[in-house]
Amino acid sequence: MNKPYVIGIDMGGTNTVFGVVDARGNVLSKSAVKTATHSDIKLYIDDLYAELSKLIEAAGGNDKIKGIGVGAPNGNFYSGKIEFAPNLPWKGQIPFAELMTQKFGIPTALTNDANAAAIGEMIYGAARGMKHFIMITLGTGVGSGIVIDGKLVYGHDGFAGELGHTTSVRNNGRMCGCGKTGCLETYASATGVARTAREMLDMSKEASLLRNIPADSITSKDVYEAAVQGDKIALEIFEYTGKILGEALADFVAFSAPEAIILFGGLSKAGDFILKPIVDHMNANVLPLWKGKVKVMFSELKEADAAILGASALAWEIK
Amino acid sequence: MNKPYVIGIDMGGTNTVFGVVDARGNVLSKSAVKTATHSDIKLYIDDLYAELSKLIEAAGGNDKIKGIGVGAPNGNFYSGKIEFAPNLPWKGQIPFAELMTQKFGIPTALTNDANAAAIGEMIYGAARGMKHFIMITLGTGVGSGIVIDGKLVYGHDGFAGELGHTTSVRNNGRMCGCGKTGCLETYASATGVARTAREMLDMSKEASLLRNIPADSITSKDVYEAAVQGDKIALEIFEYTGKILGEALADFVAFSAPEAIILFGGLSKAGDFILKPIVDHMNANVLPLWKGKVKVMFSELKEADAAILGASALAWEIK
Repeated sequence: MNKPYVIGIDMGGTNTVFGVVDARGNVLSKSAVKTATHSDIKLYIDDLYAELSKLIEAAGGNDKIKGIGVGAPNGNFYSGKIEFAPNLPWKGQIPFAELMTQKFGIPTALTNDANAAAIGEMIYGAARGMKHFIMITLGTGVGSGIVIDGKLVYGHDGFAGELGHTTSVRNNGRMCGCGKTGCLETYASATGVARTAREMLDMSKEASLLRNIPADSITSKDVYEAAVQGDKIALEIFEYTGKILGEALADFVAFSAPEAIILFGGLSKAGDFILKPIVDHMNANVLPLWKGKVKVMFSELKEADAAILGASALAWEIK
Repeated sequence: MNKPYVIGIDMGGTNTVFGVVDARGNVLSKSAVKTATHSDIKLYIDDLYAELSKLIEAAGGNDKIKGIGVGAPNGNFYSGKIEFAPNLPWKGQIPFAELMTQKFGIPTALTNDANAAAIGEMIYGAARGMKHFIMITLGTGVGSGIVIDGKLVYGHDGFAGELGHTTSVRNNGRMCGCGKTGCLETYASATGVARTAREMLDMSKEASLLRNIPADSITSKDVYEAAVQGDKIALEIFEYTGKILGEALADFVAFSAPEAIILFGGLSKAGDFILKPIVDHMNANVLPLWKGKVKVMFSELKEADAAILGASALAWEIK
């Protein structure tokens, strides 16, 4: 029997959003529950079940649903488990795909959020038709999903694609939540941009619109808005961030020779302010054969739906 | 009809070695021709034909040969061409696989030497049974072949796996033949080790066995021999090289989460002198989930035959 819909669940540290999606990438219905308030995984799933069941009923019941795809922090595609996620309330290894399959009676697949975004982009977004690309998610952290020969790279253990934790600054780099220093994530995430803003404002006497904002609450959005007004320090912040990101992308190109690198998440809203230095510094650091040849582009998924779409895309691939 | 043999051809800048190989990885016969003396590709192929035909005849003729596999600098698997190889006498794009197929009447596949080494290791060597590993060749340069899900990664354009040209030293790095600075290859190759030796001897007043050798002719073998004797500078050279290589490997692990990294080539003969710092610095720079989990090992292919075996392995995969 033909099952026309899938469920996409995007689990964040605070909220979990989910929806029913058709084969063309339309989100037919969506809703949300809190993640952080449930210290017991069973209660969380009960809550999710109560809300999601309504959407499933409205779509025609379980018989219409091919599968459930979940994007979750530290989600492991191979094991279906959420493994030691620092930003979730449940410790250790949670067999989330199995618990969901049992509760809903619908086959469930799980991966991390950046991998889900990459699959979403390949099925519904800017990477349609591409066999080789790298998705970089620029949010609170920096995540990545790598596609080679049309397939997501999970690696030996299911944890491939942690490009946010490659080292950008080898000596005296910023401390990262992972325990290392100098990780790409500490510079190229939205939080990294805010850190750069604070450092640059500290080190410089230059006037800046950003000085009107308390240093601790400057966001990458504030930097963008200042850049739009021609603020010199704001432009320098994006140049600095773009340089570090572009240099990192050059190394990623040397690894898998992708057709394109696709940027997703809050920071990508900075548009050309961030894109131009990224592309310039990437091209300055690749072998001659790749100069000017690797596309760098923004996600084409509508932001409000992107996380649900990405997670849902995984469900089409359930065998 | 069952074809029990393949031909492996390893093309180097100076010499080309080749042999007839059976399915168990035995090199039944081998020979060599000069590469560098042939400025015309046709004359080179004529010379190769004259020598290789003898081996093919001795093995029972073309009917016994499944295919020819070639490992060549800048060899592109997709196009079958050698493309702009700086160390070969022929300029531009050489349709080598096609020329060989025409000349010999045997299907020919081509890739670069490091990719050939990875396939060889997977079929005959240390990576048998592995689905995810990275081969690093430490020779005059640093090459790499990446295997994901049991398949070699060629990327969008056939040039994936140029890990020798990822950037190890971001500022004031050594000049590389590729035009960039700070490439891994300028530190971790045999030539890189010799450069490090000269720099360390210059900067230090420490006594060293290496001071008995003219600075310009110190090789990585000399450094090894001094290290065996407990020479302090020689040990520091390997520590320095191993640190840079280990840091680079940590980033590669974040990309494809391999089961193992396999080292091949001249420098790997330095054994534990190089292996220990590599492993220590790799583990210091990976995410906690990978610490102590990724194997670093040396190639298991007999060195004299390895290049031929690697290239020949490609021929088994010709459809």
